[in-house]
Amino acid sequence: MFKKRMNADEAKELFLNSFPPLADIEVLPIEDCDGRIIVENITARIDVPHYRRAAMDGFAVNASDTLSASSGSPVMLKLAKTIEKGTCVRVHTGSSMPEGADAVVMIEDTVLYDEMVQVLTQIHPFKNVGAIGEDVQKGELIQERGRMLRPCDIAVLASLGIGNLKVCRKPLVVIIPTGEELVQRGKKDLKAGEVFETNGLMASMYIKKWGCDVRLLKIVNDSPDLIKEAILSNIDVDMVITSGGTSVGKRDYVPAVVDSIGKLLVHGVGISPGKPIALGLIQGKPVVCMPGYPVAGIVALFYFARSAIRKLGNIPDEPGGIVRAKLSEKITGRTGYKTFARVKLDNGKAIPLATSGAGILSSVSKADGFVILPENVEGFNAGEEVEVVLID
Amino acid sequence: MFKKRMNADEAKELFLNSFPPLADIEVLPIEDCDGRIIVENITARIDVPHYRRAAMDGFAVNASDTLSASSGSPVMLKLAKTIEKGTCVRVHTGSSMPEGADAVVMIEDTVLYDEMVQVLTQIHPFKNVGAIGEDVQKGELIQERGRMLRPCDIAVLASLGIGNLKVCRKPLVVIIPTGEELVQRGKKDLKAGEVFETNGLMASMYIKKWGCDVRLLKIVNDSPDLIKEAILSNIDVDMVITSGGTSVGKRDYVPAVVDSIGKLLVHGVGISPGKPIALGLIQGKPVVCMPGYPVAGIVALFYFARSAIRKLGNIPDEPGGIVRAKLSEKITGRTGYKTFARVKLDNGKAIPLATSGAGILSSVSKADGFVILPENVEGFNAGEEVEVVLID
Repeated sequence: MFKKRMNADEAKELFLNSFPPLADIEVLPIEDCDGRIIVENITARIDVPHYRRAAMDGFAVNASDTLSASSGSPVMLKLAKTIEKGTCVRVHTGSSMPEGADAVVMIEDTVLYDEMVQVLTQIHPFKNVGAIGEDVQKGELIQERGRMLRPCDIAVLASLGIGNLKVCRKPLVVIIPTGEELVQRGKKDLKAGEVFETNGLMASMYIKKWGCDVRLLKIVNDSPDLIKEAILSNIDVDMVITSGGTSVGKRDYVPAVVDSIGKLLVHGVGISPGKPIALGLIQGKPVVCMPGYPVAGIVALFYFARSAIRKLGNIPDEPGGIVRAKLSEKITGRTGYKTFARVKLDNGKAIPLATSGAGILSSVSKADGFVILPENVEGFNAGEEVEVVLID
Repeated sequence: MFKKRMNADEAKELFLNSFPPLADIEVLPIEDCDGRIIVENITARIDVPHYRRAAMDGFAVNASDTLSASSGSPVMLKLAKTIEKGTCVRVHTGSSMPEGADAVVMIEDTVLYDEMVQVLTQIHPFKNVGAIGEDVQKGELIQERGRMLRPCDIAVLASLGIGNLKVCRKPLVVIIPTGEELVQRGKKDLKAGEVFETNGLMASMYIKKWGCDVRLLKIVNDSPDLIKEAILSNIDVDMVITSGGTSVGKRDYVPAVVDSIGKLLVHGVGISPGKPIALGLIQGKPVVCMPGYPVAGIVALFYFARSAIRKLGNIPDEPGGIVRAKLSEKITGRTGYKTFARVKLDNGKAIPLATSGAGILSSVSKADGFVILPENVEGFNAGEEVEVVLID
């Protein structure tokens, strides 16, 4: 029998509060840090740019030398290497401004005659000049610990000359598919009662995509001893995911095994599909037990495992991953359960595919996302705008 | 001088129409196909499940044997290995239904006495039985060519026993940073006029993230011959990205080099930042020339390079990557230009950070996304709901 069917949010809170985030740090070359979580504050050691730079191709001048210049009455300046009264210096976008120059006349506003430059427009001081530190100021806090780094963030850090960064170690997750009905891919002619292993494979790909390293084990038979051994010989990892054997049948040993070598926190959740989900802790490591039915399994991954990874890996919430759409028809949830309805998106509409059917994995593959119906809501009506959690 | 300033949409269309998508196929083990584009239609060779399966833990019965059973007046069935009149067979979720059984009584609705099972409820035929092919039917089209595979899609294919898939080869992109002002990371004490190379690094990380393989070259000096040599000795790739040297200054050789060994399609785009972007074709390979100014460079990546990669790699449009938010204050575009305003997201609000400043890369790093102002729009008002393209 189930321990006690627990509300999905309560189960998640209890589970997430049962373990701390990883504190391990690794130092990586900056080019390997895309998607990683920085664990140090970065303060700029230099100004960027660290010199006054020309912001245009043209001629650096002392602006006072261009007073009243116009196309009708141009000013002539001598092309030189340094700025003195009546001279100008050729500059390119990004080049260092010569001493004494305070503006750049765009090449388009000049005519060049041998060593003389005809300036066709009056220019104001500081025009087309980038100030020291206009991008980044020395001493400025340029990156805060805890953020997930993107290529543009890394480029800013690279502009400061930084070569290595301290980031959070990726969580390592072991994935243990269990069940004597399972067969590894490659076998021909399944017998009745045999199915190909897919949950472990699917979990391994999601967990990798969500920022972890993965150790995917071979299929473990339905035996308490074998399951126990598989877990304990891999408990060097940061998190354990099992698949199968979580229900209340005679062959469902996984929750009891978790309880025998650790602590079973949750067994039976008010989530649909996904009621037989179990959650626990072994030697301080979080354990998510996916039901064998694949849609219940994927709900366990998206609702519990993904949150656990975010906590473990110190991964902040990011915008995105959700779109809003109008339901093309009514959907109804399972009373008392948080229901994961699968929907297809089409031109701003969410077309419901299925709300039940824990065994129908093809309903997930046909879907673009989940509409999640809360426990206390009977359903959503056709035409109602809903949030769709994209299935990545 | 610029070839001719071209409207951004026209430039994109002209560019994308100038080369075909890749036709190369590779065959990969299914577990390596997350995020890859499938190039074959997959039809199910088997039913899933391929046998009638128990959908619950309990006892397989012939439903007619449970007629009128109730907790007040239970029916007794003999626990057996096969179904005959008056017998039942123990089954687990997913196990094969024995011949002659047409329903499963849940374990919760029974009491077991040694070899006898007391059935406490009448059950209808087909109850708790999964039909052959209820997930996938033999002959069903299960995956269409051209889709980007997700772990859940791969799991369905794995349930059919498929081990390898034909996918589109990843585009290979060479990235060539140019500019004698650039120095490689690791150098101490920059001179005036020197800056660390960041555009090539940033481009390489984005291009990888967007599904390509990348060859990032060392810095190439501002010399037509060196730039030409760098491109031609890497023209075995599928796409070329250069950075720097795209403007109209004396040292801006890149567009002319592209034109001398291929075809310069576009030089000068009505996009801001990003006016000096150039686009071309060399030996049939698309070429994107990023301006050296980093914000202009990132606009070239997001607006042109990303679209080119999607075309080359046969990558379909996917939902997501855009959120809707209300502007916290007015933003104004540059007249006649498609303007990329950088905004920060906060609780459903989009807070404008900058609309100009091609050199201020830190404005991108501080931003969550771009609000793109069309050419014919003066600006957007405070409170207006806008689309924010997330910066990944």
